Amino acid sequence: MRIALIAHHVAPVRPPFGGGVESFTWYLGRWLARRGHHVVAHAPTGSSIPGVQVRELDLGVRLSDAARCDVDMPPDDFMAAHHAYQRLMVDLRRDPDRYDVVHSNTLHYLPLVMAPTIGVPVLTTLHTPPTPWLESALRSLPPEPRPALNAVSPATRAAWESVVPGLPVIRNGIDPGSWPAGPGGGPAVWSGRIVPEKAPHLAVEACRAAGRELVLAGPIIDGAYWEARVRPLLGDGVRYAGHLDHDDLARTLGTASVALMTPAWDEPFGLAAAEAMACGTPVAAFARGGLPELIGDGGGRLAVPGDVADLVRALDAAAGMDRGAVRAHAVRTAGIDAMGLAYERRYEALVEHARPEPVRTLRPVGASTVGPSGVGSAAPRRRGVAATARARAVS
Amino acid sequence: MRIALIAHHVAPVRPPFGGGVESFTWYLGRWLARRGHHVVAHAPTGSSIPGVQVRELDLGVRLSDAARCDVDMPPDDFMAAHHAYQRLMVDLRRDPDRYDVVHSNTLHYLPLVMAPTIGVPVLTTLHTPPTPWLESALRSLPPEPRPALNAVSPATRAAWESVVPGLPVIRNGIDPGSWPAGPGGGPAVWSGRIVPEKAPHLAVEACRAAGRELVLAGPIIDGAYWEARVRPLLGDGVRYAGHLDHDDLARTLGTASVALMTPAWDEPFGLAAAEAMACGTPVAAFARGGLPELIGDGGGRLAVPGDVADLVRALDAAAGMDRGAVRAHAVRTAGIDAMGLAYERRYEALVEHARPEPVRTLRPVGASTVGPSGVGSAAPRRRGVAATARARAVS
Repeated sequence: MRIALIAHHVAPVRPPFGGGVESFTWYLGRWLARRGHHVVAHAPTGSSIPGVQVRELDLGVRLSDAARCDVDMPPDDFMAAHHAYQRLMVDLRRDPDRYDVVHSNTLHYLPLVMAPTIGVPVLTTLHTPPTPWLESALRSLPPEPRPALNAVSPATRAAWESVVPGLPVIRNGIDPGSWPAGPGGGPAVWSGRIVPEKAPHLAVEACRAAGRELVLAGPIIDGAYWEARVRPLLGDGVRYAGHLDHDDLARTLGTASVALMTPAWDEPFGLAAAEAMACGTPVAAFARGGLPELIGDGGGRLAVPGDVADLVRALDAAAGMDRGAVRAHAVRTAGIDAMGLAYERRYEALVEHARPEPVRTLRPVGASTVGPSGVGSAAPRRRGVAATARARAVS
Repeated sequence: MRIALIAHHVAPVRPPFGGGVESFTWYLGRWLARRGHHVVAHAPTGSSIPGVQVRELDLGVRLSDAARCDVDMPPDDFMAAHHAYQRLMVDLRRDPDRYDVVHSNTLHYLPLVMAPTIGVPVLTTLHTPPTPWLESALRSLPPEPRPALNAVSPATRAAWESVVPGLPVIRNGIDPGSWPAGPGGGPAVWSGRIVPEKAPHLAVEACRAAGRELVLAGPIIDGAYWEARVRPLLGDGVRYAGHLDHDDLARTLGTASVALMTPAWDEPFGLAAAEAMACGTPVAAFARGGLPELIGDGGGRLAVPGDVADLVRALDAAAGMDRGAVRAHAVRTAGIDAMGLAYERRYEALVEHARPEPVRTLRPVGASTVGPSGVGSAAPRRRGVAATARARAVS
């Protein structure tokens, strides 16, 4: 299939990742490309995904002085994102035959709003609980045709239930090959975006109380929070390792005796927990959002949200778990192949639904002659390419 | 023709008007309805236009608690407007045969961006200099098909020149019947939205310096500006009359010896000046935006923008002008019939362009049998209705 991935606009899609959505987009894109699909990512400047063509979002709009002086001029970055997605959707509308399917992973409202206008099926993945922008966009759409959506976890589906009931779930997945088993035995680790809603200061408190050393890793997104609540706690066994590149992060996760997840919001999935588990490191986590389902009994121990004393208990219990079993749990329940195959099936269903023409000249599935030159009409060709891709070995 | 007017969402379209765009929409709608067109205004709750069916914009979106707690919650009114126009455009797209033409007068970007998707020709009137939202929308659209646009004055066309060159101009017009000649002789008057960019405090300064009494009239939109810069100046011959209803405003304008326009921005047209002139009251104005062209030599006197001393000079010079000549100038250069006829011609051209089918069963123009039941195909029927409407007397 010819697949367009729409990325979120705030960070380039390449390691080290600005956050879970960038990581998701990168791994999915690479997986789809390895699988034989033609994948284009519409993503911020600096994005780079193996096997995927990147087309940059036009985030550099320079409006006229008259517009910039207008009393209603919003912040520059807000306007830039608005303009970038507006341009993208208008461009897609102009050339509906460029792609078979568009998969939007941005939290911005415009791709969702304009999806019904571009003449190509669009799948929108809801990576978070309801946000005002996405919720408003969804509420404003007519009931039919229903937008194609999925949630990244049962917890995210539940959070959206009052807005869009019964969302299909395609759970996020991590690539076990990218997160090799590590030896453990080192300090505890907390990784993720450093923002108040992920509350790394509670990880510090728990490790202090448990008498464990701690390494913090991840981009400092909220500088004020960092300065006020986290940086003063450093030292005395607590170290900030920076925004690590992939290999360093994998090594840090793999050498940790235990990992912590301390969300103060309903963490939709918990990619950082999945990565730690894949490296064999058990996770102690507040039981919020997608974490209970992701970690379960096999990947770590859960604590009452916000209760640091209970987190200390979970920390000690998790640290004693068998690392091989933890990795096996991650591979079994959060592997990228299951995720990739599920998205591929969803894309195919959308393409079939959007192009209901009868199959006329389709060759046998997987036959080498199936391809752009082998088929007379667009619809069968697409099906043929999809089937070919499906027949290849999973990466 | 079956015409949909899209109103701006911030104020109901009924007197007393929140601003010039509401006034424009009301007078145009009434004119078109009197002319025999079927006119529907998609407008905020509380709108009421004689002869025009009002369909309320759905500005009442209620977000879930989850969304309202999101850290990025934008202002409620932004969300409501977004929701309202999104719903409207999606609704229009679902039933493209409801209208022959859609005329958008909102400053919101969505109707402009989504115009190419709804299957009905859309005319967008640019009522202001470039705003970030409309400029971004226009720059997102492909060069072809070109959006149908017009500016309300040569000044507005010039302001947009670097973004969309060569905009056609349809100058705003006022209904002389609604703004009867008045006797003059009373205090000076300033009317309009009370906002910093219209700078009524400079009108007070000028009248104080000229030894003239002044009446301020209009809605207080920017309360902070009012409290800080205008209210402290009241008294001693300067009075705030409130947001007057139409008859009181017409009487206040008509009894004024002179009117003031003191924009601190490029006032696109200057409806308040046109109304004063129609009542026979000459205007002293800063020479900005559309005012020099509107007022010219026949309707008042111009001053260097921001120069209060020069405005005092203009005030005294304008106050001596012949009131009958001032009214005649307004009727000749800013009458509603010229505006209405120009919009009607533009609508017809858009309908013709959008429906190029050959005429098959069209009856003679103006024949009484022309109408929904008299014609076999949609395109000829539309032409017939348009021609019928054109043949009627101008109101």
